[in-house]
Amino acid sequence: MSADPRRLAQLLGHLFDRGGLLEQALTHRSAGPVNNERLEFLGDALIGFVIAEALCLRFPQADEGTLSRLRASLVKRDSLARLARGLKLGDYLRLGAGELRTGGHARDSILADALEAVFGAVYIDAGFEKARTVVLNLFANRLEQTDAAHAGKDPKTRLQEWLQSRKRPLPEYLVLSIGGDQHDQTFTVSCLLNDVDVSTRGEGTSRRRAEQAAAQAMLERIEHV
Amino acid sequence: MSADPRRLAQLLGHLFDRGGLLEQALTHRSAGPVNNERLEFLGDALIGFVIAEALCLRFPQADEGTLSRLRASLVKRDSLARLARGLKLGDYLRLGAGELRTGGHARDSILADALEAVFGAVYIDAGFEKARTVVLNLFANRLEQTDAAHAGKDPKTRLQEWLQSRKRPLPEYLVLSIGGDQHDQTFTVSCLLNDVDVSTRGEGTSRRRAEQAAAQAMLERIEHV
Repeated sequence: MSADPRRLAQLLGHLFDRGGLLEQALTHRSAGPVNNERLEFLGDALIGFVIAEALCLRFPQADEGTLSRLRASLVKRDSLARLARGLKLGDYLRLGAGELRTGGHARDSILADALEAVFGAVYIDAGFEKARTVVLNLFANRLEQTDAAHAGKDPKTRLQEWLQSRKRPLPEYLVLSIGGDQHDQTFTVSCLLNDVDVSTRGEGTSRRRAEQAAAQAMLERIEHV
Repeated sequence: MSADPRRLAQLLGHLFDRGGLLEQALTHRSAGPVNNERLEFLGDALIGFVIAEALCLRFPQADEGTLSRLRASLVKRDSLARLARGLKLGDYLRLGAGELRTGGHARDSILADALEAVFGAVYIDAGFEKARTVVLNLFANRLEQTDAAHAGKDPKTRLQEWLQSRKRPLPEYLVLSIGGDQHDQTFTVSCLLNDVDVSTRGEGTSRRRAEQAAAQAMLERIEHV
């Protein structure tokens, strides 16, 4: 038996006018044909736009690549699932018998999808400004914590600073290949740390973009070590 | 020398309050540091959301996979470039010398990016409802032409109907592999047309989704023949 969705609505700061909409947003496809898949599609697009705007306002100097990376990190599945857990959204879900038995209430993908669907439902019920407010309220802390120092810097700069702070040699970037037509080229570049003989690759429509992608891949490898 | 952007603004149905915003949306990165890259990021997200909502309204029965496919087709680069050409957007672009020389005014990627940036600029200038109206006006014909008959049907159904109408045998779907953890599985499925010995593959988080992906790949192959 699920908890009363009105408690969730209170937490979100929006009491629904239209009956059934919030309930539909909390209904996984395993529970029946009237489920949250379409609301999830709408809510996913809504979050993408609202967070894009929030990042543009918060980081007026950041380039488009940095904004894209920050957004991807904010709206990825496990980030959304964490926010959903903060709302105890799992308590409100309606799942089919199989998902109930196998712990669907706690699954990242189901939680993230349902949270997106809830945002989609708020939009349908109350329009853009209200939905934007609800999204921004929920993301406020995460947006606050988003690293302004790093956000404005591109991956090559961040990698260089990280290496310099450890008195290590600078990375080497090598163009491995250039494919495609003259005006639709794809560059493949490697980023090599000579002192430890570790390399990563990046692709892009220019040499600069490919180098940034390779540096980003190196930063991610470093973070996982 | 570029054409007067106010003519473009009239065509779009929005006269800008803030000076310079439309000009920035029309400035390619090759022309200088104040360019349209950030506006493009915002506008891309805006279009994604506005078209998502429009498709939800137009196709109230379509499943999320169908809506996603329809949106991808409407907002892909060459669709946007075609809309930009309809506005003669190339006449208003500000490009660097290199891009000017090599025909940047006519390039799909530059036209599509600039159109996205223009939508982003309308949003900043006039808010969501106005930006939504401008996007929907420009996409009205394309949305109108989007095939309602096919849109509501999933790829397996469409493939089956296409084959039946030609009195050909039904496709065979075979699970090739199942990877990943129990609750995060990836299915790989092939779709085989026995009479012509042609097969495609699809992946998905369930057998059903993988079969739909394989059927979609087969439909695309058929369309190209």
